Amino acid sequence: MAQVCPKLSREEERRVPMASTNGDRRPKYQRIADTLREAIQAGEYGPGDRLPGENDLMATHDVARMTARQALGVLQAEGIAESRKGAGVFVRAFRPLRRRGIQRLAQEQWGAGRSIWAADTEKRDLVVDQVEVTEEPAPERISVVLDVEAESKVCVRRRRFVLDGKPVLLATSYLPAPIVAGSAITEENTGPGGVYARLAELGYKPVHFREEIRSRMPSKDEAAQLNISAGTPVILICRTAFADEGRPVEINEMTLDAASYVLEYDFDA
Amino acid sequence: MAQVCPKLSREEERRVPMASTNGDRRPKYQRIADTLREAIQAGEYGPGDRLPGENDLMATHDVARMTARQALGVLQAEGIAESRKGAGVFVRAFRPLRRRGIQRLAQEQWGAGRSIWAADTEKRDLVVDQVEVTEEPAPERISVVLDVEAESKVCVRRRRFVLDGKPVLLATSYLPAPIVAGSAITEENTGPGGVYARLAELGYKPVHFREEIRSRMPSKDEAAQLNISAGTPVILICRTAFADEGRPVEINEMTLDAASYVLEYDFDA
Repeated sequence: MAQVCPKLSREEERRVPMASTNGDRRPKYQRIADTLREAIQAGEYGPGDRLPGENDLMATHDVARMTARQALGVLQAEGIAESRKGAGVFVRAFRPLRRRGIQRLAQEQWGAGRSIWAADTEKRDLVVDQVEVTEEPAPERISVVLDVEAESKVCVRRRRFVLDGKPVLLATSYLPAPIVAGSAITEENTGPGGVYARLAELGYKPVHFREEIRSRMPSKDEAAQLNISAGTPVILICRTAFADEGRPVEINEMTLDAASYVLEYDFDA
Repeated sequence: MAQVCPKLSREEERRVPMASTNGDRRPKYQRIADTLREAIQAGEYGPGDRLPGENDLMATHDVARMTARQALGVLQAEGIAESRKGAGVFVRAFRPLRRRGIQRLAQEQWGAGRSIWAADTEKRDLVVDQVEVTEEPAPERISVVLDVEAESKVCVRRRRFVLDGKPVLLATSYLPAPIVAGSAITEENTGPGGVYARLAELGYKPVHFREEIRSRMPSKDEAAQLNISAGTPVILICRTAFADEGRPVEINEMTLDAASYVLEYDFDA
């Protein structure tokens, strides 16, 4: 079976016909942005390459600095390019993590003592750089879904995941405090197989998962935590893990930098 | 099991502490936007309600028209509000379609003669308002995944789906022309059970699916076709359908208005 979905070729998606400048009504900055986009699509600038700077564009196109800046801003807003402080504007390298929703959550992953997240990384260096474990009263939306009393205590695990030094994922898990009390789930390091292996030991083995997916623009706070470039949305995944008899045992709210991920679900008809 | 994922409460997500204006360094338009956002979150303005206009905001906050306009612009960029030409700015009603990836593609759906899309709509009025069926040389990315020779002919089905009068989904399917020649797949109306039922009749019953999901900002063309509000990303789903022996028989590239959809995947551990 083919490995890569054709939709991933964003250069192809964005291919636009070469526009003539005679009688062209587009604003100048848009025309410059279109020219640069075409050059990127033609491979003249590859992923990670530096684009011409404001001074270059001013000279080449005989425009004011603000026009040059606006042109580069268009490409950044589209997520095609990104600015690096003091270094210029660069072609965005889109080399996403592939997150396999279903295989990843198969028992053989966590049952054998591997953490489920390890399966995501495909030998790339995804690390947790922030982790915080607390006990808190359940927010209303959580108590409703976990089917516990309003404001009853939940174990909250907040983590940030970093890939190649770039934060890519925020995850907050909620578990009913009474069922995880005293287990490694309440510690930073949950041990081999992670939270799901521990839940199984406690008699609440996850047997069913539901993942719900949305996308929207990040809040300011999310953009800061994930160091998200302009023009890039977040993907929200809310996963609910169910033990026997449909008992919800964990809710994991995840916020992903959309530029860093492809989600994959493989299943039979 | 709970029906609604807690992450869906975007009002809760976006709740921000009430800011004092004493010594507040936020620009004025940002403060006004924050005040309006809080009022929306508190339920003072419900989904579909009209927000105060520029004149109202100028009078209430003693600011210039541009400041009032910027404040409303912030809420639109965040996707919380949307402008309707000549009528004002309204609180966005987020009432998404729930698209159940796995159940929807189960054989019992299309095997029994129902079109797979009918399962998506939950009795809401999702209709195809544009459909175009052509035969074209396969684009390179398609021929690679379909495992056919470069530029060999593919049947291309382009459709637009509209919900309650709003376009929400663009879908383009590619199928190898030789295997679908002469079947209803090459016609606008594919008949009961749709494309997958016809493929089964032709001896290419889909037995496995892969869905790959990404999100990014829409291109201008996509924004126009989906009538997308500012500050709203698109979700891209690329589905590949495989017949026996892993033979790819269809690629469906979908582009979804992210404000209109929640994707759901339910599966066992």
